[in-house]
Amino acid sequence: MNMTEMQAIVDRSPLNRWLGMTVQAVGDDSVSLTVKWREELVSSPERRSTHGGILATLIDGAGDYAVAASLGRAVPTLDLHVDYHRVAAPGDLRVDAGIVHIGGTVATAAARVYDMSGRMVASGRGLYFVGAKPAN
Amino acid sequence: MNMTEMQAIVDRSPLNRWLGMTVQAVGDDSVSLTVKWREELVSSPERRSTHGGILATLIDGAGDYAVAASLGRAVPTLDLHVDYHRVAAPGDLRVDAGIVHIGGTVATAAARVYDMSGRMVASGRGLYFVGAKPAN
Amino acid sequence: MNMTEMQAIVDRSPLNRWLGMTVQAVGDDSVSLTVKWREELVSSPERRSTHGGILATLIDGAGDYAVAASLGRAVPTLDLHVDYHRVAAPGDLRVDAGIVHIGGTVATAAARVYDMSGRMVASGRGLYFVGAKPAN
Amino acid sequence: MNMTEMQAIVDRSPLNRWLGMTVQAVGDDSVSLTVKWREELVSSPERRSTHGGILATLIDGAGDYAVAASLGRAVPTLDLHVDYHRVAAPGDLRVDAGIVHIGGTVATAAARVYDMSGRMVASGRGLYFVGAKPAN
Repeated sequence: MNMTEMQAIVDRSPLNRWLGMTVQAVGDDSVSLTVKWREELVSSPERRSTHGGILATLIDGAGDYAVAASLGRAVPTLDLHVDYHRVAAPGDLRVDAGIVHIGGTVATAAARVYDMSGRMVASGRGLYFVGAKPAN
Repeated sequence: MNMTEMQAIVDRSPLNRWLGMTVQAVGDDSVSLTVKWREELVSSPERRSTHGGILATLIDGAGDYAVAASLGRAVPTLDLHVDYHRVAAPGDLRVDAGIVHIGGTVATAAARVYDMSGRMVASGRGLYFVGAKPAN
Repeated sequence: MNMTEMQAIVDRSPLNRWLGMTVQAVGDDSVSLTVKWREELVSSPERRSTHGGILATLIDGAGDYAVAASLGRAVPTLDLHVDYHRVAAPGDLRVDAGIVHIGGTVATAAARVYDMSGRMVASGRGLYFVGAKPAN
Repeated sequence: MNMTEMQAIVDRSPLNRWLGMTVQAVGDDSVSLTVKWREELVSSPERRSTHGGILATLIDGAGDYAVAASLGRAVPTLDLHVDYHRVAAPGDLRVDAGIVHIGGTVATAAARVYDMSGRMVASGRGLYFVGAKPAN
């Protein structure tokens, strides 16, 4: 999948558009994305930190698009694990994700979120359903 | 802590205000919150599903405020785990959270997210740092 | 499923037998089990604490058997999350588990591990595959 | 820390000794370990698969020793996340772990478990407390 095709998948989501999510690179089973900082992303008004839920959104999405780079389509998330390493100060963010393992039923992808000075602020992994459509 | 005091803590976050997060109940170590649906929360345009990162935001925040109900202040999240159970159709959401265990250093809280017909769409748990300020 | 039927499922695993895992109660979607302490379970020789991997084993297994209480068969674990709350001192342990959500493809179960004085030492959740056999 | 020093830390745990855990390599913030298969590790008698709790034990321990490679001492695990990728057939296992991030209070380490033919059977991450002794 090329960057234009991946950007088209990303842009289908209103939340991604609101975040200004932009594809920076696409590999066979990996992706790199950036998002634009905006005031509404702030959690603590004193520290002006980006909300952990936004960092979780980036890890969920980037992991999904790493699977999409391999399969050609976005897939449902089964579960998500996020570790928070540092306060994310105001500013754009980058997230890099790659597939850890893809099987016939589920895929695991790992992602890392960096601020624009290259400091890792969070990392984590998602589990995605890659088989037939779930019944529930 | 009463509901007015908890709402004041919730309202400190611009992201919470953007989500229309409203305190519905506060216990000694638990909290119930609602958020207003808005178009920007959508992940898939066909299914009109609320993005999993938004559900993660609710679990992170509600777990944090369950700890705040006990300690009187919001605390940093160390990590977060979210299970996705069903597609969250367009509509307001409710999240209920309670403390699983609180120690001298960290606290674990669990949360469940429901749609307005009472179906659980996601659940999970967060780990929060309750000791002295982390050095990193 | 009655306790004798569940014990037969539990006893199929050599690891469970080595742990002396005994069914204490079975519900429609829940189970309670105990294991016998043995010297080989120790992690730290000074604190004589039971190894966190053993607590993870109990959470994985009990969650699986809670699903089995509903489905009539044990199921493969997709992933596992464990929170450690307290040091588990030498002694037998009890683990209680229940289903959080069961769908057509996956099920989430939650479990809590207690020492014999009733103190919770760990808790967590597993995700289990309940659909057709995974291809990988 | 050299391999002999690391093996001495590993050997302090009766569970590690029962597993025949052997240090294969030590880096500044990483470690590689092997364990010996034994009949008691089996989960399903038909598939003869190694129990997921044993794989969790390896990920927990290897992550801990990756932190120990940096700090010079083993540390308490706060929580653990494990993804299961394939059935682990009877045979010895190798686990490689490295630090993802280490701060003043907590450290995150990631680990991958391989069978002796080099197939990854599980992977995951642990969160470890590296600050002062927890009060609980």
